[in-house]
Amino acid sequence: MHLRSKPWASDWLAEHSDIVIDQDRATAQIGQWQSLFDQEQPIHLEIGSGKGQFILGMALAHPEINYIGMEIQETAIAIAARKSFDQVGTLPNLRYIYGNGNGVETYFEKGEVSKVYLNFSDPWPKKRHESRRLTYKSFLKSYEAVLPEHGEVEFKTDNRHLFEYSMVSFMDYGMRWTPEDYTLDLHADEDKVQGNVETEYEQKFMAKGQPIYKIKAHF
Amino acid sequence: MHLRSKPWASDWLAEHSDIVIDQDRATAQIGQWQSLFDQEQPIHLEIGSGKGQFILGMALAHPEINYIGMEIQETAIAIAARKSFDQVGTLPNLRYIYGNGNGVETYFEKGEVSKVYLNFSDPWPKKRHESRRLTYKSFLKSYEAVLPEHGEVEFKTDNRHLFEYSMVSFMDYGMRWTPEDYTLDLHADEDKVQGNVETEYEQKFMAKGQPIYKIKAHF
Repeated sequence: MHLRSKPWASDWLAEHSDIVIDQDRATAQIGQWQSLFDQEQPIHLEIGSGKGQFILGMALAHPEINYIGMEIQETAIAIAARKSFDQVGTLPNLRYIYGNGNGVETYFEKGEVSKVYLNFSDPWPKKRHESRRLTYKSFLKSYEAVLPEHGEVEFKTDNRHLFEYSMVSFMDYGMRWTPEDYTLDLHADEDKVQGNVETEYEQKFMAKGQPIYKIKAHF
Repeated sequence: MHLRSKPWASDWLAEHSDIVIDQDRATAQIGQWQSLFDQEQPIHLEIGSGKGQFILGMALAHPEINYIGMEIQETAIAIAARKSFDQVGTLPNLRYIYGNGNGVETYFEKGEVSKVYLNFSDPWPKKRHESRRLTYKSFLKSYEAVLPEHGEVEFKTDNRHLFEYSMVSFMDYGMRWTPEDYTLDLHADEDKVQGNVETEYEQKFMAKGQPIYKIKAHF
């Protein structure tokens, strides 16, 4: 996703540091994330939360979970956080990190995150950019470092090649799943689409009739 | 594999119809394959047996199994069968079918084949040739039709893209495996390389230092 930079983004983020945590503060927060939420309850983390429709939808649908959207693009995180703030104010169970997925183990202790979401991650189709894909082994290592034993990564994409690549990357890492854990056409699967919160990309690709691939893979 | 055609191939095959079964005879043989072997014992089928080094090596290593190598290229099947005949005569547990992988369910009854092998199948990299890949769903349907319930397909390749494609094709078909069932670097895995019989391609790619991917996937 390539967004035109917004002149207001930087100031808005500085003024809303209670909602959007920057990398330095995220690093200092390690082991103490529950203190930023109203309720002590499981934390689910989306890596690459983009313009934030998914994480906001999830936070509204699941008050029993604390959500964190992490995004490396300043414009995207500012759009996401401002939109949610303007729509519903400061939600008790939603925060953002303006930071990098590779740094996730510097922000969280082992087991501090109960689940990781990856939605419509950049496919980085060129072979030489493999290490930037959010399902590359170095990222998997980071996710494993913050999840509990046998923790779960839930991954949605419209991109067949990224999905194929990711299955073998998961396998290479020893991750597991069963046929109940995936669908290769989410919106044609009545059971698995239950409770699905759509992202901006998902709606765009659905409108084109493209299938959405989804898997829950476990360490 | 593209082989220069051999003028002797056609005659040789006609003269050795006890070893190499053509499509018409294979169709007539349905349900009665055990009668072509000395011993009644499980039949393992290699689809695309090429020049036959694998199936010959397996037949010599495992006298307790009946092997069939199936190959659609006349030159390849003639080279394979003649080489094995010249080296060891008519083996009691090895036969060939000069035929097409898509026709496998016209040659065998359900459960008549105990295991299917695919080795270094043509990757058919172009999207429009997807349906020619031996792990495409129509082929999986054929293999399922001749294997027992939860039957096994064992697949080796050096081609990363074909392997990635095949994992998702297997998943789409509801096939299963565990981390014990695969390796992404066969020759670096001391346990899983035990008893491995190398194909001609495998030796070529090993010499280049390329990893060999292998999986046993179950219906």
